[in-house]
Order: sequence, then structure tokens, then C-alpha cells
Amino acid sequence: MDFKSRLLEKAVESLSSLPGIGKRTALRLVLNLLKKDKNTVENFGKSFIDLVNNIKYCNECHAISETELCNICLDQRRDHTQICVVEDIRVMLAIESTMQYKGVYHVLGGLISPMDGIGPDDLKIDDLINKVNTNNIKEVIFALSTTMEGDTTNFYLFKKLSKKNIKISSIARGISIGDELEYTDKITLATALSSRLPYENSLTK
Amino acid sequence: MDFKSRLLEKAVESLSSLPGIGKRTALRLVLNLLKKDKNTVENFGKSFIDLVNNIKYCNECHAISETELCNICLDQRRDHTQICVVEDIRVMLAIESTMQYKGVYHVLGGLISPMDGIGPDDLKIDDLINKVNTNNIKEVIFALSTTMEGDTTNFYLFKKLSKKNIKISSIARGISIGDELEYTDKITLATALSSRLPYENSLTK
Repeated sequence: MDFKSRLLEKAVESLSSLPGIGKRTALRLVLNLLKKDKNTVENFGKSFIDLVNNIKYCNECHAISETELCNICLDQRRDHTQICVVEDIRVMLAIESTMQYKGVYHVLGGLISPMDGIGPDDLKIDDLINKVNTNNIKEVIFALSTTMEGDTTNFYLFKKLSKKNIKISSIARGISIGDELEYTDKITLATALSSRLPYENSLTK
Repeated sequence: MDFKSRLLEKAVESLSSLPGIGKRTALRLVLNLLKKDKNTVENFGKSFIDLVNNIKYCNECHAISETELCNICLDQRRDHTQICVVEDIRVMLAIESTMQYKGVYHVLGGLISPMDGIGPDDLKIDDLINKVNTNNIKEVIFALSTTMEGDTTNFYLFKKLSKKNIKISSIARGISIGDELEYTDKITLATALSSRLPYENSLTK
């Protein structure tokens, strides 16, 4: 596309560099921005510059935080012997919204993905091992996506942690609440069958 | 959602202020940005600030342009007596991509939409009337969306221009090329019937 303006082209390129946003959508969004007042658009741009220059991560769990330690890691009412391993802050926010988990988190910052050139060294894995070695950790819970990358990362972590004297668990894989069995895919159904629980333990919370 | 960081929240708010982008998508996009290097994210933000501070519009047709007059308005091989009225630069780019149109454009900057508080004075309508009054214009072509807002704007422009000694036309409304008649909606089908042309004029270009 010939955008008739280098400035317009650059703004469109910026937005379309984001996953799931193509050039056409980006152009629509940029033209929408241009209908807003100058200040709003300046603040729009500034919010990303501020973010990248001042963002902080919790020293303990590596979640995005305003302070050296995040609110969850600072909270002494939470169980610091139980660590839930998540891919990024989105999963952490999702789990927090269930209000069922009282332990702490460890944010890996991604999943092992050889296809994308992401290896164990690109993630906060060593730091997790150190935590288990030095702190008094009783359980590590894997809460990673049920994808190839999630499974690879689960397996890698399990190999690293299996000899330590801790409980290692993974969140349950099975039928989503509300799903009808006849429409469930074969792999999920087979996993749900083999992971069956005593009835009294299987009730929806 | 509690984002654990004001900076993160502001960036998410910025992106989710764009149409069609919700808070969850915005968070996904911002976390994706944070995986890129600092420079890339700074340039991302800067591209919008540069855009809004330095954007220029063609003095003649009001399209986004790098110069006082855009390339199309400067092009003397184009027919300056024929003006195609469009909502925004996106439609102009779409029509240009057909390589069928040899006249010039007039970008309204929107459509009349009382629901959104956009009246004729918010658009470049007076300027179009002036052009028709003072320049030697032979034809004005309406190329606006076939929506309520497009039709309202068409009608308003027609009222303003109908007494001038010029040809006023609208792009054809009918069956899209490749569409099957049995799946075409009733209004389109009725419009296509009443707008029928002599066969030899109706062939696909």
C-alpha cells in the first residue's frame, strides 16, 4: 500500500507489528486516532515510552510490579512454601481472579519454544531452581498452557526439580465446566478419563 | 482488572481506547511489546507522537499528505474537473488500487452521523461547495459507504449541489462480483434490479 505519507506509514507499521493486527486494521486504527485531539494521541504514544523506560519486575516472582517486591510476594498471609509457575502475568491475573489460590507465583516470562528460538536460558528457570534449593519450598504447581510449548516446559522443569524433596503438581487437564462430552476432542476426553478422581474430590468448586 | 502496575495499566488503556480492542487483547499486545527490545518500543510510541505533531493534509483534497498539495492533486495528467467524494483516505487508497479512476478526490473526513454528534460543519463540506462554485468542475461522484450515515451524507451533499450545473453521480449499488443471487439480501437485490443497465454497459471491467 502507498500511504501517501511516511509518518502515516510508520504509525501503521508500528501497530501492524503487533500480533493479529494487519496493515488494513492498523490503518483503520491510526485514522481513528487522528480524529482524537492532539493531547490524547501524544499521551497514547507516551504511555508506551513511559512503560518501557520505567517498568519494574518483582525481584522475587518476576511479575510486573511498581515496587521491588510485588504485593503478593510481600503478603505474609500467603503461603510462601507453595509456588505456582506461570507463563506470564496474564495467567497470574486469571488465577488471582478465581480467589482460590493462597500461595505465591513464579513468572517464567514465556515458554520453551525451539521453533521461536526460546530456550531454557531465556526464561527465569534457574531462579526457580535456586528458590527451591535455598528457600523452604514444599510444593511447585505447574500452571502452563496445554500446548506443545507448555508440555515441553513442564517436562524440562520436572526433570530439574524431580530429585528435590518437594511435591510437584500440575493443574488438572480435563473437560471444561459446562462442556458437553459428545463435542469434546478425543485427546481431552482420553486425558480426562485417565486422570479420573474419586467422585467426592471431583466436584466443581 | 488489577494490573499491579500503573504504567502497565496506562499502556493497556491506550490500546483498548482503539475500536475493536478490548482490555484482554490490549494486555496481550502490551506484554508482546515488552518482549521486544527497548528501542523498538520507544519507536513504537514515538511514531504516534511524530504522526500527530507533523501530519499534513493536502490543501486541495484534504487527504493525508507529505506536502502542501498531494501527488494526485499535483498530477496534471489527471482530470481536475471530476471530483470523487470519499469518507477517508482508506477509500481513496482502495479506489486508487483499482487503477480505473483518473479524476481527483475530495476527502470529507467522516460521514454525517447525528448519533455520534457529527454534523455537516465537522466535515469538509463547505470546501467542496466552494470548489464547485469557483473551479471548473464537471462531475462530482459520491463514493460513500452504503450505510445510514453514508446515505444521509449523500442526500445532504445532493441538496447542496443539485442546483449547480454539474453532473452528480454515485457509485453503483448492486450485486458484488462473484456473489450468488440466491444468497443476496433483499435490499441489495431490489436496488440492483431497479438500477439495471443496458446489457452492454453492465459488463465487469
